[in-house]
Amino acid sequence: MRKGLVSASCARAKAASREMALLSTAAKNSALRAMARALKTDAAYIIRQNGKDVAAAKKSGLSKALIDRLILNEARIGAMAVSLEDIASHDDPVGKVLEETTRPNGLIIKKVRVPIGVILVIYESRPNVTSDCAGLCLKAGNAVILRGGKEALVSNIAIFQVLAKAAKAHGVPDHAMTMIEDADRGVVRNLLAQEGLIDLVMPRGGESLIREVSRVSRIPVIKHYKGVCHTYVDKDADLGMAKEICLNAKVQRPGVCNAMETLLVHEDIAGKFLPSMIARLKDRGVEIRGCATTRKIVAKVKAAKEEDWHAEYLDLILSVRVVKDVEAAIAHIMTYGSYHSDAIVTRDEKIAEKFLAEVDSACVYVNASTRFTDGGEFGKGAEIGISTDKIHARGPVGLEELTSYKYVIRGNGQVRT
Amino acid sequence: MRKGLVSASCARAKAASREMALLSTAAKNSALRAMARALKTDAAYIIRQNGKDVAAAKKSGLSKALIDRLILNEARIGAMAVSLEDIASHDDPVGKVLEETTRPNGLIIKKVRVPIGVILVIYESRPNVTSDCAGLCLKAGNAVILRGGKEALVSNIAIFQVLAKAAKAHGVPDHAMTMIEDADRGVVRNLLAQEGLIDLVMPRGGESLIREVSRVSRIPVIKHYKGVCHTYVDKDADLGMAKEICLNAKVQRPGVCNAMETLLVHEDIAGKFLPSMIARLKDRGVEIRGCATTRKIVAKVKAAKEEDWHAEYLDLILSVRVVKDVEAAIAHIMTYGSYHSDAIVTRDEKIAEKFLAEVDSACVYVNASTRFTDGGEFGKGAEIGISTDKIHARGPVGLEELTSYKYVIRGNGQVRT
Repeated sequence: MRKGLVSASCARAKAASREMALLSTAAKNSALRAMARALKTDAAYIIRQNGKDVAAAKKSGLSKALIDRLILNEARIGAMAVSLEDIASHDDPVGKVLEETTRPNGLIIKKVRVPIGVILVIYESRPNVTSDCAGLCLKAGNAVILRGGKEALVSNIAIFQVLAKAAKAHGVPDHAMTMIEDADRGVVRNLLAQEGLIDLVMPRGGESLIREVSRVSRIPVIKHYKGVCHTYVDKDADLGMAKEICLNAKVQRPGVCNAMETLLVHEDIAGKFLPSMIARLKDRGVEIRGCATTRKIVAKVKAAKEEDWHAEYLDLILSVRVVKDVEAAIAHIMTYGSYHSDAIVTRDEKIAEKFLAEVDSACVYVNASTRFTDGGEFGKGAEIGISTDKIHARGPVGLEELTSYKYVIRGNGQVRT
Repeated sequence: MRKGLVSASCARAKAASREMALLSTAAKNSALRAMARALKTDAAYIIRQNGKDVAAAKKSGLSKALIDRLILNEARIGAMAVSLEDIASHDDPVGKVLEETTRPNGLIIKKVRVPIGVILVIYESRPNVTSDCAGLCLKAGNAVILRGGKEALVSNIAIFQVLAKAAKAHGVPDHAMTMIEDADRGVVRNLLAQEGLIDLVMPRGGESLIREVSRVSRIPVIKHYKGVCHTYVDKDADLGMAKEICLNAKVQRPGVCNAMETLLVHEDIAGKFLPSMIARLKDRGVEIRGCATTRKIVAKVKAAKEEDWHAEYLDLILSVRVVKDVEAAIAHIMTYGSYHSDAIVTRDEKIAEKFLAEVDSACVYVNASTRFTDGGEFGKGAEIGISTDKIHARGPVGLEELTSYKYVIRGNGQVRT
């Protein structure tokens, strides 16, 4: 796909985004529900096409974990449909009046939510992202350009065709959803140069993908680098509660970004807390990599290296460090963390407040598992990602975060003096 | 200034930003008021230093307009002080709870405004920007790195020294304000590579500066490209009101971004409206560049070329185009405009609503002058710029727009199931 073709495609998306911004809530919801129905009706077709991707992946020797991410079945397609219905059931963010003021001169100024315009989503192997992103962007009134991984291309095209046909039948403009079918890497570079036509880029995938996109892009990027999440167990923690929280944060679903990767423990309670905590984690198959103090307290713990403090394992591995106090815990988190989700377990409210104020992460917790960082768990509905940026959106990026705003000013002849 | 020195300087700013985030409102306000007093007390010193810049500018043949922007006197320094006092009197955005929810599992989730961190401001010749940006960033709890134009370097250093001394005496951390004194252009490139240390870049100046900054930067940039603002006079307009609004939008202060650059007129009333409107504009010294129809209606009007529709004159020049209807007006604005501020004059509410919905600009007006696009006029206080972006901030960028948010979650042992 040459640059001219990419531009033409983006220009059509831009034109469609203008129509999208005017679509009624009812029209968007009926399109979303029709898309959900179509996924279920055409599940057999999607599964058949997905089989081609899976066969090619097996042939090319893709890892078992990656192949598992790729596979679609009735249950997974059903979950995609449920997600679209869930998006339909959420409030429409567009048109919401965020602020309203009448000025002394009589001007009425409203700050109103509007769609962003055209959103480019660049993602890796999971084909359900196609459907989730199409649904979220549609509900927020945006046009979307989808660029999935080449391993899932046949599946993504099938899902896209099914969704686009259903959306079109319900009044969604033709180019409001665009799938980039050219797997060539140069296409991404051309897309990222379409400043003025694309308004926002959302890369979803590993850190290297996100770094590369943000290095090349002339368009604003919302980044989700990684989740190096910490739990700090303070000297005044309820140690029973701390154990449950740490266990949950590490083992309930270790492969996701809000799982704990490093446990920090106050030195005063380390001797009492760590032996049974580590035993429980080991029972659940967790490999421990500890600091020198940890290894003095608990036998047969592997030594943590400097790189362990930076690591997002996404696996049953945990680094453990004994720290002097809450100051040292905060300093560790601000040095090695990824500003995603970090928790303190303590009964001391002053210490809790200090931690909440000084840990500059998207989500900071007292006495709860970091696993709650999630649009659904926050009551915000589905999300397109978790932002570790501080500009525009931080934490879960859901419908509201996929909008901008404008000022609408009504007067009766006011001029400035 | 080599890259290592730039990084070290940014790292100190980052560390200071952590302290800034914890500063109380009272401390910030007393620092701002002390800074205002110091400007007045040290006015003679600042004016003396400014004289060196002005002398150098005259010697190097800088234009009269640019030299005028550069000159500081008691009145201008007084205005800078008033602006700092005004910032002190505004609400502190930091710590404001934007949303609060208690989840069914008992988790209490608060979305709380926090500072962004380190903000780099790159600006051109006006030395008052030094003081305005230092004040706004301080109140919003950010550290600021200031990089002004080389013509104003001696003035900027003087203002900065006065402000920094006063701020420090009131508990503002040492590196919360940094002035880049090295006028070499390569320094900007090094600054724009400090991703991770600088959180946001605000370029203030001409379009070419902003394009260059946004091309080079690895850090998010809030852009204010230009203000190609339109007024569309509809067939159902109150023509007397339309005349006052157009006159104000063009001549009240032609050199600023919210001044009108193009007048669009419905064909049905063009014959009635344009002769007296153009006569009044010409009386005020405005040069008119009209479309073919305009030139048929009014004699001795220069022909507008294609580039006139794109032009931000910032001067007593106006392009005029007769259009078929509101659709054509909207299409013109979306094709040639800069999405800054655009107005319609009409008594037809349906047409007004259509214009407000379909013109995708930061500020859209009905029956008022575009000159009101301003933080102060919106009741939001001073602004660091007017964003023509749709990401993070749109329109006036004031204290609230200089913040981010975080989620603070309090539990009593919740784990995810």
